[in-house]
Amino acid sequence: MISKGKISRRTFVTSAVSVAALSSLPTRRVVAEVAAGQKPMPQPGAGLTDAPGWKDQGIENLAKSPHAKLRDIPVRAVTISGNFWAQRREINVNRSIPSMHDLLEANGRMNNFRRLVGKSEAAQSGPVFSDSDVYKWTEAVGFVLQSGDRPELRAMAEKFIDEVVAVQEPNGYLNTYYQDDRKPLRMQPQTQTTGHELYNLGHMLQGAIAYYRATGDRKLLDAGIRFVNDFLLPNYGPAPKQPIVSGHPEIEMGLIELYRITGDQRQLELAGYILQGDKRIELPERRTIYMFSGTPFTARTKLEGHAVRAMYACCGATDYYMETGDPAYWKTLNTLWDDMTATKMYVTGGVGSRSDGEAFGDAYELPNFRAYGESCAAIGNMMWNWRMLAATGDAKFTDVMERALYNGINSGMSLDGVLYCYRNPLAFDPSTGDKIRNPWYDVTCCPPNLERTFGSLPGYFYSTSGDGIYAHLYDNSELNWHLEDGTGLKVTQKTNYPWDGAVEITVSPAKVSDFAFYLRIPGWTDTAHVSVNKKVLAGAKPGEYFPIRRRWSAGDVIQLSLEVVPQIIEANPRVADDSGRVAIQRGPLIYCLEEIDQPNGVSLSDIAVDPGRRPGEQFQTEFKNELGGMLVLHHTGALYERGAQKSLYARFGGESLKTRKIPLTFIPYYAWANRQATSMQVWNLLLQA
Amino acid sequence: MISKGKISRRTFVTSAVSVAALSSLPTRRVVAEVAAGQKPMPQPGAGLTDAPGWKDQGIENLAKSPHAKLRDIPVRAVTISGNFWAQRREINVNRSIPSMHDLLEANGRMNNFRRLVGKSEAAQSGPVFSDSDVYKWTEAVGFVLQSGDRPELRAMAEKFIDEVVAVQEPNGYLNTYYQDDRKPLRMQPQTQTTGHELYNLGHMLQGAIAYYRATGDRKLLDAGIRFVNDFLLPNYGPAPKQPIVSGHPEIEMGLIELYRITGDQRQLELAGYILQGDKRIELPERRTIYMFSGTPFTARTKLEGHAVRAMYACCGATDYYMETGDPAYWKTLNTLWDDMTATKMYVTGGVGSRSDGEAFGDAYELPNFRAYGESCAAIGNMMWNWRMLAATGDAKFTDVMERALYNGINSGMSLDGVLYCYRNPLAFDPSTGDKIRNPWYDVTCCPPNLERTFGSLPGYFYSTSGDGIYAHLYDNSELNWHLEDGTGLKVTQKTNYPWDGAVEITVSPAKVSDFAFYLRIPGWTDTAHVSVNKKVLAGAKPGEYFPIRRRWSAGDVIQLSLEVVPQIIEANPRVADDSGRVAIQRGPLIYCLEEIDQPNGVSLSDIAVDPGRRPGEQFQTEFKNELGGMLVLHHTGALYERGAQKSLYARFGGESLKTRKIPLTFIPYYAWANRQATSMQVWNLLLQA
Repeated sequence: MISKGKISRRTFVTSAVSVAALSSLPTRRVVAEVAAGQKPMPQPGAGLTDAPGWKDQGIENLAKSPHAKLRDIPVRAVTISGNFWAQRREINVNRSIPSMHDLLEANGRMNNFRRLVGKSEAAQSGPVFSDSDVYKWTEAVGFVLQSGDRPELRAMAEKFIDEVVAVQEPNGYLNTYYQDDRKPLRMQPQTQTTGHELYNLGHMLQGAIAYYRATGDRKLLDAGIRFVNDFLLPNYGPAPKQPIVSGHPEIEMGLIELYRITGDQRQLELAGYILQGDKRIELPERRTIYMFSGTPFTARTKLEGHAVRAMYACCGATDYYMETGDPAYWKTLNTLWDDMTATKMYVTGGVGSRSDGEAFGDAYELPNFRAYGESCAAIGNMMWNWRMLAATGDAKFTDVMERALYNGINSGMSLDGVLYCYRNPLAFDPSTGDKIRNPWYDVTCCPPNLERTFGSLPGYFYSTSGDGIYAHLYDNSELNWHLEDGTGLKVTQKTNYPWDGAVEITVSPAKVSDFAFYLRIPGWTDTAHVSVNKKVLAGAKPGEYFPIRRRWSAGDVIQLSLEVVPQIIEANPRVADDSGRVAIQRGPLIYCLEEIDQPNGVSLSDIAVDPGRRPGEQFQTEFKNELGGMLVLHHTGALYERGAQKSLYARFGGESLKTRKIPLTFIPYYAWANRQATSMQVWNLLLQA
Repeated sequence: MISKGKISRRTFVTSAVSVAALSSLPTRRVVAEVAAGQKPMPQPGAGLTDAPGWKDQGIENLAKSPHAKLRDIPVRAVTISGNFWAQRREINVNRSIPSMHDLLEANGRMNNFRRLVGKSEAAQSGPVFSDSDVYKWTEAVGFVLQSGDRPELRAMAEKFIDEVVAVQEPNGYLNTYYQDDRKPLRMQPQTQTTGHELYNLGHMLQGAIAYYRATGDRKLLDAGIRFVNDFLLPNYGPAPKQPIVSGHPEIEMGLIELYRITGDQRQLELAGYILQGDKRIELPERRTIYMFSGTPFTARTKLEGHAVRAMYACCGATDYYMETGDPAYWKTLNTLWDDMTATKMYVTGGVGSRSDGEAFGDAYELPNFRAYGESCAAIGNMMWNWRMLAATGDAKFTDVMERALYNGINSGMSLDGVLYCYRNPLAFDPSTGDKIRNPWYDVTCCPPNLERTFGSLPGYFYSTSGDGIYAHLYDNSELNWHLEDGTGLKVTQKTNYPWDGAVEITVSPAKVSDFAFYLRIPGWTDTAHVSVNKKVLAGAKPGEYFPIRRRWSAGDVIQLSLEVVPQIIEANPRVADDSGRVAIQRGPLIYCLEEIDQPNGVSLSDIAVDPGRRPGEQFQTEFKNELGGMLVLHHTGALYERGAQKSLYARFGGESLKTRKIPLTFIPYYAWANRQATSMQVWNLLLQA
């Protein structure tokens, strides 16, 4: 069943982990203790083969991944302060995560656990994937704690974790929806297809791992290991075991990250088996398309079906590639990436244009008003590109990651941190009655997903490679880490990014060292000026990492200057929804119009961007303290004077081309819908000269 | 429960039907005979109060409807020959209806009936509304037979009808899905909500009535009466009877047309009760929106939810208004009509833009590639406007009816009559893999719906009024009927409509008579020249009926000349999907581009219509014998030379405005997708001068 995904022994011999070390954990004794109500002390390291130690692992631990070019740094290694992301992260920690804790409680997510041990009388509540809400929130807390202790959050999470593990059955199973009277449905093919059992487990593993990496506390991790090793591995897999289908991909990522901790090769093999699907579970084609699973991942040729499922499957497959180097996976991953970026991604980095099935549309099907662009899908897009970047060091992946992060993801959480978008449309009309930002959704996947993403953000700033360090993202920050050879390294960034393009980077190795500092030059800049200690370096190209190879001493200063100016962007003409329209981008930020910022009575459907001025005079910038502080763009556009057409269809008379000048004000897309309900538009008509 | 829909006695006193005549039929004896396996002879007229007699009834029998301004003519009164619709109707009778008979058989639709009486071993097949497929096909045959006998079709239908009525239970119930082992589910609120029980009955009544009006054969009609009078009326309705919800409106139309035959006021009252909904069946709001039923029709303020449901509900509500004159209904109907025509209707007359829920979208949400535009919804739109026209004599309703008929409906059946569209998009890309025309759908509502519509078409050509006759549609045809005062009247039309706008109408009353001939002047023409016996008459206005009041003698000739020229149409700027784009209309026909008709290698996304020429020189017409014979339009448009942009997003550089001239060929929209798979587009970019 897993011919294409077969793990070659060679791969492992070349890796740092010895095959002999790949033994499973002695977990049965632990189970017995938990079953008896005792709480075993966390045993950091015991039975685990992970290196570096838990404190030094990043978002992913690629230390031993033979086909990763880059290695994550720990989240705690970077401190972001005083600027764009610091503000978002502060709100995330102080408002979003605590309020989500209360909402999870208020909506019965934890009572689902308590009722199974007689501590709650409440009925099961929420959809089949409700446990994952708790795990994603736990992961968010885990990432926050990796950046430094927050006792109140830690206490909340510990209470949750205690209540979760109390529910685990002696056989390792743990899922509040399929314990109790739904037990007979457990792991039935139909349940696997629609019941999110393994999806919940995947999030449990990710939450457990983030918490372990923050605290060394193995309680939830050990529960996850028991679920995998005691329940799943002995009973499910290739024949003669019972078959698995990943109804909503997520378990693949979870299993492989677990393997990176335990060294237990069976976990990696199981992920590969799941990625390939099992023919014994027969499913209609439209179901395997929707699920982006159940058929061999390596047979896929395009992105389709449920966008979050597809993105998570691609994440898992990239992880699998980084461990195995399977060329069929690499080929498929690149085919899918090309398909997405050339035909199916919004300019905001959002993906999944169709609300019907929360799915990828056809090529170039990118409606604006009806854009689905689920927050989770944009996050999945970022997570996938992070993995592709780790595999290659190619800046094209960082460009997509940054596009999604600053726009389609950042839009997903209100500026006050307590309201969330499920959909992230690129045009909006409040008269439809849609309420776009809400504190809670019964399907509440997006809010804690946003929280874990912002919690983990420092971990995305840098990677190390065998020959140096890569700088991916820019914001006021300080790195305190080391090169792969162990040499201590501090890097500080001083910048007002994304509002302007000047970044001063001070590089301070603990001792004078030869290494390469890979400076990301974003694809959106026209020019990039780089100097080190005021000496200009030539050769930096947009859309590439610029390697600065030299002997570095403490206090060396890189000056990077990117051209952060408003740009007029057009879509491929095959995007019917954007034809005749343009978007405005400045640096990594996509801008939009909200009707309340424009002159009274002006409808966004009647305005046009005027490209006819000299570049540089088209837009004036102004920093405003509103909406968390942002740079707005002023532009003298055109207003079509055609208010007269009330009918739906009319003879074209030419009069619709009459325009007059009108002052327009653009705000960053991420800040939309943070005031009163008003129309919004990213793609605006282009005034044809 | 039916406060707003209460039928005022006054209404009926003013109507032509006396209240005393509204007695129910003595049907129990008939039931007993059928139950015993005997087949009672049809008893035309017995127990019925309908007038005129069955032969002289139209699509609807409005002879006694107090609030109808116009009265239908019988289908048989008009013979269409030798031109546009004659060809479609010939194919409908000779190919579509016979092949659909075979497909209904092959797909088990009739075996569903046979299995209940032990004549088939097959399992139930098809969705819950499968019986309606048979009834709609029977209705199509009924309309065809109204135009003249077709023994082979009549034999097919009689066999079907015998097999249908054989299944009826002694209590009157008849529904193959809920007989046998699903009997306990029958008429449960959940079943009514999703099980299409009353929808099937509505179609049974419509099929039975069309067949009765063709043949006088009451077999199926009596079965329908038994279902209504013996099963439904005694047991269901306002408390203390059991409640009803119309899960898919259709029964309302059926009941009211039945009332027009039986005179049984309880049937009308039941329709009113159903239109108002019954609070005892509690449903989530999104369900009542989707169903367009379950809440008071008169509380609705916009079109939303499932488009076919909404259209059929509006049909039933208009029928109810024509019988009762309830002003709340009239207000709501006009509000909904304004909402549809000002914000939610495609230029093809198609409605229901969203595939998700087969639903109306928000105002101005009219995507082209993703247009749903179900054939049934366009038919429902035509049926509704036919009723609104009957209530008012207002030509604005005829304009919508004609738009839907020539475009969004006519596109639904292939030119060879054996393939059908379910969706009718306004742009198409075959690389998506969609197959747009198919011989059969498991949900096969559209094919027989198209067949019944084309079968009934002659009945839509004229109506009578108290003061004369209305001409609605133009095609080579002959009317042989009479005025409402009984004076015989023949009217012949000689025309090449829709290819040109000259119509010669010969009016021949049986005796010299004073009456008004209401000549429809379509809304799409800029001018209309009218003469009678070569004497020019002034005052004809587009979008109105032009009443020619005079003393008519046999052989009087009306010459009507409409301006049938290509027009460039633009949509309201709030339709984002059409902004910067135009459609081409000529007479009642919307035109489109198919890629195979354009120069090699040209993508439809790169072409633009050039409005910059003098009107009249923009397009050249050519009649081609292809595709059933059609007038194509040649136009020198513009090709954007921007093939270079392969990426999804790029900096706007101005170079995308470079164009060169290119010859384009438009075909009528209804003829699209009748050759090889190719791209299609209705709304094309407009070249901005």
